[in-house]
Amino acid sequence: MSENNKIGTYGFVAEPFHVDFTGRLTMGVLGNHLLNCAGFHATERGFGIATLNEDNYTWVLSRLAIELDEMPYQYEDFSIQTWVENVYRLFTDRNFAIINKDGKKIGYARSVWAMISLNTRKPADLLALHGGSIVDYVCDEPCPIEKPSRIKVTSMEPASSLNARYSDIDINGHVNSIRYIEHILDLFPIELYKESRIRRFEMAYVAESYYDDELTFYKDYVGDGTYDVEVRKNGNEVVCRSKVIFVGK
Amino acid sequence: MSENNKIGTYGFVAEPFHVDFTGRLTMGVLGNHLLNCAGFHATERGFGIATLNEDNYTWVLSRLAIELDEMPYQYEDFSIQTWVENVYRLFTDRNFAIINKDGKKIGYARSVWAMISLNTRKPADLLALHGGSIVDYVCDEPCPIEKPSRIKVTSMEPASSLNARYSDIDINGHVNSIRYIEHILDLFPIELYKESRIRRFEMAYVAESYYDDELTFYKDYVGDGTYDVEVRKNGNEVVCRSKVIFVGK
Repeated sequence: MSENNKIGTYGFVAEPFHVDFTGRLTMGVLGNHLLNCAGFHATERGFGIATLNEDNYTWVLSRLAIELDEMPYQYEDFSIQTWVENVYRLFTDRNFAIINKDGKKIGYARSVWAMISLNTRKPADLLALHGGSIVDYVCDEPCPIEKPSRIKVTSMEPASSLNARYSDIDINGHVNSIRYIEHILDLFPIELYKESRIRRFEMAYVAESYYDDELTFYKDYVGDGTYDVEVRKNGNEVVCRSKVIFVGK
Repeated sequence: MSENNKIGTYGFVAEPFHVDFTGRLTMGVLGNHLLNCAGFHATERGFGIATLNEDNYTWVLSRLAIELDEMPYQYEDFSIQTWVENVYRLFTDRNFAIINKDGKKIGYARSVWAMISLNTRKPADLLALHGGSIVDYVCDEPCPIEKPSRIKVTSMEPASSLNARYSDIDINGHVNSIRYIEHILDLFPIELYKESRIRRFEMAYVAESYYDDELTFYKDYVGDGTYDVEVRKNGNEVVCRSKVIFVGK
């Protein structure tokens, strides 16, 4: 198979309600587009959720790391490329490039996915799926950003808390992956977004949360514009962790 | 001008993170698409915000009413048509039809817009704009739903309150029109969405709110599945009002 066919490319425009007060696309919306591209790319190659669901399997996002030189500005066209970097027995690495209106690569993203059985909620063997044919799509396109890191939060003092509401919940009955990103972005004062921008954003999804769960957000500042965030539900169970790295504009 | 050229038609798909726990598109996302279509349609005809901004004018959404028989389901294609129904000196009425994957009209929407000067924040005379040529686009396509109504809320007991955060704020520095819709939808318990769906949703935008403003939500149940909602900022100033009509599934 040619390397070209292994990479999917999808076009977008930065819509007015998808940009923040600086006119730049928000990290939540970019995350949404990345996950949609993952879905398009997998579906076109026979590994999409609709196909998997017939066999009672689904993809679960485990980690996401996004690193950018700049974000698309309101009304600008941009595109996202995605490809599979590695397939292991229980995980697959899917990477992304974000390309601006002039065709310049302005950022990259890495994601890690598992497949689970909807019957048992246990992980499935990716190398056994469709006779292991997913490995035919592995592609050596470069993705020059660090892999998702380990995130450790020590703060015992909640930065904020909320109860999961209607708008947080997806078709699986879980708080959706993108809403966590939005809630985490809302931990930071607008002054920080005025003087700096997010250079790197990481999410590690640990457990699901549900309607009316109380989500508590803990935040450490670890220097150099870097914040580590942990989201816990109903007391102490970790739901997800995030690392947010700001740089001056 | 032919009636056909007066109507703009735009295609969409119900993305996974844009549907709720029932798998149906959320009202906030539909509102976002409607406002985008208004923008596309106006831009294509020389009345878009980018063109207006050159002369220091912009469109301001005053009212929105949406009424639906059903919402698109996850991954379904759908389309939105939009056209101008009336142009008055200070307001214009823009209508919409929502069309499902089979080409059937499943809902309609009405919106009312003013144009303001960015210098004075005062309304501009639409009939004077571009020599009044906006009236050439007036179209008599039917829109068989009621006009936006007057909404009056009597409750003195807040249903909830929040402070506007980073994710709420748009490029103009205001809480964005769509986030109000999401916050209002979150006033209702998930049980209500399990047994019923929103048949009609109205918004009346009264005043702008800003970062860190305290938004307080007041809600009246007025019978027959109908709720009136008022959002006030920093005490008693009304920001917007909404009417939400639920019907059994």
